[in-house]
Amino acid sequence: MDALAHLDGEIATAKRLGRYRTYLNLERRADLASRAIWHSGEGDREIVVWCSNDYLAMSGHPAVVGAVTEAVRTVGLGTGGPRSISGTSVYHHALEAELASFHGKPRALLFSTGFGANEAALSVLGKKLPGLVVFSDELNHASIIQGIKGGGARKRIFRHNDVGHLRRLLAEHGPEVPKLVVFESLYSMEGDFSPTAEIVEAAEEAGALTYLDEVHTVGVYGATGSGYAEELGLRDRITVIMAGFGKGLGGSGGYITGPEAVVDAVRSFATSFVFSTSLAAPVVAGALASVRQVRRDPAQREAVRARSAQLKAALHERRIPLVSADSHVVPVLVGDPHLCKRVSERLLAEHGYYVQPVNAPTVPEGTERLRVTPTSRHTPDDVTAFVDALDQVWSDLALPRA
Amino acid sequence: MDALAHLDGEIATAKRLGRYRTYLNLERRADLASRAIWHSGEGDREIVVWCSNDYLAMSGHPAVVGAVTEAVRTVGLGTGGPRSISGTSVYHHALEAELASFHGKPRALLFSTGFGANEAALSVLGKKLPGLVVFSDELNHASIIQGIKGGGARKRIFRHNDVGHLRRLLAEHGPEVPKLVVFESLYSMEGDFSPTAEIVEAAEEAGALTYLDEVHTVGVYGATGSGYAEELGLRDRITVIMAGFGKGLGGSGGYITGPEAVVDAVRSFATSFVFSTSLAAPVVAGALASVRQVRRDPAQREAVRARSAQLKAALHERRIPLVSADSHVVPVLVGDPHLCKRVSERLLAEHGYYVQPVNAPTVPEGTERLRVTPTSRHTPDDVTAFVDALDQVWSDLALPRA
Ligand SMILES: Cc1ncc(COP(=O)(O)O)c(C=O)c1O
Ligand SMILES: Cc1ncc(COP(=O)(O)O)c(C=O)c1O
Repeated sequence: MDALAHLDGEIATAKRLGRYRTYLNLERRADLASRAIWHSGEGDREIVVWCSNDYLAMSGHPAVVGAVTEAVRTVGLGTGGPRSISGTSVYHHALEAELASFHGKPRALLFSTGFGANEAALSVLGKKLPGLVVFSDELNHASIIQGIKGGGARKRIFRHNDVGHLRRLLAEHGPEVPKLVVFESLYSMEGDFSPTAEIVEAAEEAGALTYLDEVHTVGVYGATGSGYAEELGLRDRITVIMAGFGKGLGGSGGYITGPEAVVDAVRSFATSFVFSTSLAAPVVAGALASVRQVRRDPAQREAVRARSAQLKAALHERRIPLVSADSHVVPVLVGDPHLCKRVSERLLAEHGYYVQPVNAPTVPEGTERLRVTPTSRHTPDDVTAFVDALDQVWSDLALPRA
Repeated sequence: MDALAHLDGEIATAKRLGRYRTYLNLERRADLASRAIWHSGEGDREIVVWCSNDYLAMSGHPAVVGAVTEAVRTVGLGTGGPRSISGTSVYHHALEAELASFHGKPRALLFSTGFGANEAALSVLGKKLPGLVVFSDELNHASIIQGIKGGGARKRIFRHNDVGHLRRLLAEHGPEVPKLVVFESLYSMEGDFSPTAEIVEAAEEAGALTYLDEVHTVGVYGATGSGYAEELGLRDRITVIMAGFGKGLGGSGGYITGPEAVVDAVRSFATSFVFSTSLAAPVVAGALASVRQVRRDPAQREAVRARSAQLKAALHERRIPLVSADSHVVPVLVGDPHLCKRVSERLLAEHGYYVQPVNAPTVPEGTERLRVTPTSRHTPDDVTAFVDALDQVWSDLALPRA
């Protein structure tokens, strides 16, 4: 077998299926995170970004920019080691304390990515709790799936957000069996919330631990911005809350918060944590500034939620179909990979609006969509102009109305 | 089972075995990377760090600090998405081009960590090359082991640096079987180089692809600092060269460089790459500045190599035993976890020198060691004073001489 030719064939298949990903080369504006200069190769063009997870535009917040700048000047960029070998900076120490307090948990632990946080934490729980059975929502993120697989524990998959199904699966395992229910507060490709309270209740009744991914809700929900569990008053009833800095907090990296025993076990036994250089100190300092800002000031989350409500109402009026209308994430249903790509291309070419098409295998075939994410820095006029543009493309391509 | 109590028990076992890791809370000095302020909880103290992988002290190089500062002011901290959904910045684009040229390869791809680069690349090769057999050195890094496991391909382990054994294993599989040989140029816990040329030759004769981890050699070896393969004139004969920014380049993150087909397949099919927020743009900008600096100026790598030679000669003179004396990494053999910890504690308490003990399971039981890493910013006097201190502790604890 010619290995390289074989890989070329795999790429060709992805292209034929409309699954090949291309990247836009962007220079986002720190001072106005909804705008970017697109370096297209055929000249530069200012565009409006409608698919960023930087929901609160914290990436360019002066407090964040200032903290990154100060930290790199004080301690430099790389830490030079994993946490246990010279790789713990004063910023790591301070951020973990801040995160524990933010979520009202005894302890927190940082990772270089949110993906890595799920992978590490769920692997360790699977490996270190003999006989564990993990109950996982069928739409859980790839990082959760990989973590559960890495841990090697038995896995039961419940239908998306189906608490009845979860209860039936839980009931199939006796009280002596250790159980863990893993779910997300907001499924970001669907835009829907989980029935968080009902899932927590079902888990409690079965004596199961709970693990909640709040990656897309941190910063955006809750009185102090710590997420959906805070909004529902459920934080104390969830064992592990996992989240990250890559979305609403405007940075990069991930974390878990929870009981001493869980956090210390992950810290001690997760291979991908123990044997990897720690997150760069300026990134940690930026995250710390972002969390502190978000805790104290609700203005950004109020803005994104208002903008999102305006967008959903306007799309509803034009009868443009949505996958769901629960949250600040607004997935517009197209239902075909090639059409989805064409809508995206026309929005960009004709209107300077960037929304990446989301195709299979990220979402099920036939449910291809444009995942639109207003941010706190999009204005009401931005929203109106975007809806007009989408409406026009929708008519031009004769796409079905709701 | 009480799950939390069970995890507490696992932690207690690690403590009893001398395997429990504690962290020093450090404020390293950007302007003098060999020094840090240790925030011990009982007051602050300036110490000399002797266990950092920031070999060239690039973390605080003015070019790096300047690039991070400029980037965060221009585009902000987080990219707001994975590479394919608004997460590609002009810096990502430029750094991948720079890395391909640095290593003389067609293409490069960035990851948030070196761990993640190995995990992603090796998983994809295992999954996408049917029938692949992977030949892996027994001391390969945890990230390589996890990547091979994730790919699900058949694995054959050859004894550390044993080319004869590798050849015998290769010969057990016919020419029709696709093969991949995975190894490191420098095993950083051992301090020894692989017989890189002989391994490449064996792989070529068997028609195998090669994958070389240059994490600990990039920046430090080769005429332009691209690593050990460059030093030996072997770059063109290795399929994939993997390295990262967390060590000699003073930043964080990882990358692969290689043929279009391999890089595009990993880019397209690696779950942990596709579904994770891209590396923060200021970190990418800092890495770009570091690579450009290292390519053009050999001063830092000459300094670290000179300092390391001085250290090894002085330890030899005092008959303090080393695990190996091949490279710039200097592992001092202690051979007992509790003694290893005591040497480390005394160096810190009595002399202000920080060297983390490396105990099992990171290294085999009975070979516990102090992994000493001089950097380009340690002076000849620093080295002399350190050796005097270690010599004294060695005598006080009556440790065996070579
Ligand atoms: C639900 C969920 N969990 C985890 C992650 C991974 O986080 P990160 O992008 O920081 O790797 C993501 C997004 O990428 C996500 O959507
Ligand atoms: C040989 C080797 N490969 C890969 C890695 C992982 O790189 P990173 O620390 O960037 O995750 C390391 C070190 O941690 C390493 O020693």
